[in-house]
Amino acid sequence: MNLGQLTMFGKVFSRQSSSNCKVGFIGLGNMGSYMAVNLLKSGHQISVLDKDQERVKNLKNLAANKDIQVVKSVKDFGNVADLKVIITMLPSSPQVIDVYKNESLLKNTNKKTIFIDCTTGDPLISKEIGREANKCGHIYVDAPVSGGVNAARDGLLTFMVGGEKDDVEKASVYLQKMGKNIFHCGPVGTGLAAKICNNMLLAISMIGVAEAMNLGAKLGLEPSVLNKVINSSSGRCWSSDTYNPVPGVMNGVPSSRDYEGGFGVDLMAKDLGLSQISSINQGTKIPLGSAAHQIYRMLCDQGYSKKDFSVIYKFLSEIK
Amino acid sequence: MNLGQLTMFGKVFSRQSSSNCKVGFIGLGNMGSYMAVNLLKSGHQISVLDKDQERVKNLKNLAANKDIQVVKSVKDFGNVADLKVIITMLPSSPQVIDVYKNESLLKNTNKKTIFIDCTTGDPLISKEIGREANKCGHIYVDAPVSGGVNAARDGLLTFMVGGEKDDVEKASVYLQKMGKNIFHCGPVGTGLAAKICNNMLLAISMIGVAEAMNLGAKLGLEPSVLNKVINSSSGRCWSSDTYNPVPGVMNGVPSSRDYEGGFGVDLMAKDLGLSQISSINQGTKIPLGSAAHQIYRMLCDQGYSKKDFSVIYKFLSEIK
Repeated sequence: MNLGQLTMFGKVFSRQSSSNCKVGFIGLGNMGSYMAVNLLKSGHQISVLDKDQERVKNLKNLAANKDIQVVKSVKDFGNVADLKVIITMLPSSPQVIDVYKNESLLKNTNKKTIFIDCTTGDPLISKEIGREANKCGHIYVDAPVSGGVNAARDGLLTFMVGGEKDDVEKASVYLQKMGKNIFHCGPVGTGLAAKICNNMLLAISMIGVAEAMNLGAKLGLEPSVLNKVINSSSGRCWSSDTYNPVPGVMNGVPSSRDYEGGFGVDLMAKDLGLSQISSINQGTKIPLGSAAHQIYRMLCDQGYSKKDFSVIYKFLSEIK
Repeated sequence: MNLGQLTMFGKVFSRQSSSNCKVGFIGLGNMGSYMAVNLLKSGHQISVLDKDQERVKNLKNLAANKDIQVVKSVKDFGNVADLKVIITMLPSSPQVIDVYKNESLLKNTNKKTIFIDCTTGDPLISKEIGREANKCGHIYVDAPVSGGVNAARDGLLTFMVGGEKDDVEKASVYLQKMGKNIFHCGPVGTGLAAKICNNMLLAISMIGVAEAMNLGAKLGLEPSVLNKVINSSSGRCWSSDTYNPVPGVMNGVPSSRDYEGGFGVDLMAKDLGLSQISSINQGTKIPLGSAAHQIYRMLCDQGYSKKDFSVIYKFLSEIK
């Protein structure tokens, strides 16, 4: 069955049938619940686990009448028949260590299980889990996502995947049910590395745009005029031309609706913390990334943690 | 005589004849000399002044057999017949104050002279000079440029212009002989404000790209792969997709020729100093702009002042 085509850096892979086997899913938060529903919709049976029973209930509501097998603990995945794949979508690395190592997920499952960790966490931890998974005879890829809750709902996520080529192709069979773009970034850990580096640059650019637009306004420039100059000059970036943080400059972006929706300040602070950890582990200098991390931590404590990260413009421009 | 069309934010102005009057030109550095030559080539007579006689000699060489009137001091511009326009292209604001105020350029020239200051300096100083010019019965616009020496030579500069609409139209008659884009940004001082804000954002983005690409490489990512992910994601910016700082990722950019040519670290440090001054004058916060300023000052003292500003990647990645 050819389900269409999947682009992977210019190379086109034909979509493969996954024989609609059973898929395990651990972590049913805002993103995970929609991802699990899209697997269901594409014909997979799913076995799910979340420590929060409210989330399990929420998934059942989202999935309407579809049949969902609820698993009680990580150990019980060993008893699920015909389970070839387990996807994890957890808050961060500590939970990944808990599930994969402390609760022995890797040791409790049949050999040759395909583990797809979609958690945004530390690439170093991911490499360690990957090595352990291989020792236990499993396949493991890191596949963090970008695109937010709406993209998760609509099956339009982008996956940045780290792993051996064959393993990434095997994982892609399932990822394509939940997303539209799959980037193979290199060996295990590089999916996370790409996400962390991109988001660090995004945070830096967004703060830069906010500073430039605010300084410009104070110097007498109309924001829309300055934005036109920037977007036709060397300051142009995604944060200026697609996601401008100044209210009134663009429609349909969080800044036009009091910074509601979008990508939360708390999530950006978390990702910047991961780039900070990586820079320490690698002995690498990130002077602006580090400053951006501190700025987003400050925003969290100033009551902006659930606002879109472009709220930095409001924070810089307001005088109480 | 219709010389073509000139775009000004979507509005199209027909190119006007400037009756090839005599133009004064003060400041014959790398940029100014080419700008003066392009005025000559378009049929204007020019009266020039530079304190450095080597530069005057250099201009005469560049201009081959064209007739150039050399003026000995600012005062002498008062004696030049049929002088309607004076363009200044000076190192920075202190020289602007010297020429316009201390050496009395504004008081020595005929009323209704059109002053076009192309110097990149402090917008506050520009506003002050503008007010004095108006008091003396003159027209004044600030018109800093972007595009570098090659664009100056080829008449392809971009001018960001601040001034009254009528005044900007009058100045554009001359600017179009030296550039291809003219942005009217608002009242006097806003041309400089736009340039300073854009360049601050540029510096921040460039350092951000350098940090992200360096951290990514240390985490095992191929630079070309990471750059593709960034350019199709939210980290995309001019510094990543047009002027990438990592050697080997793009052809024809300074990073591919050991950071020779391009926009010097010393000039970037100067522009960041101007945004720093403006932020102090306006009481505005620029946390990353301020850090970028310090980083480029450090690069100057580390021997990189004449390298292209994308050399920040080399500085961050090298371990001596």
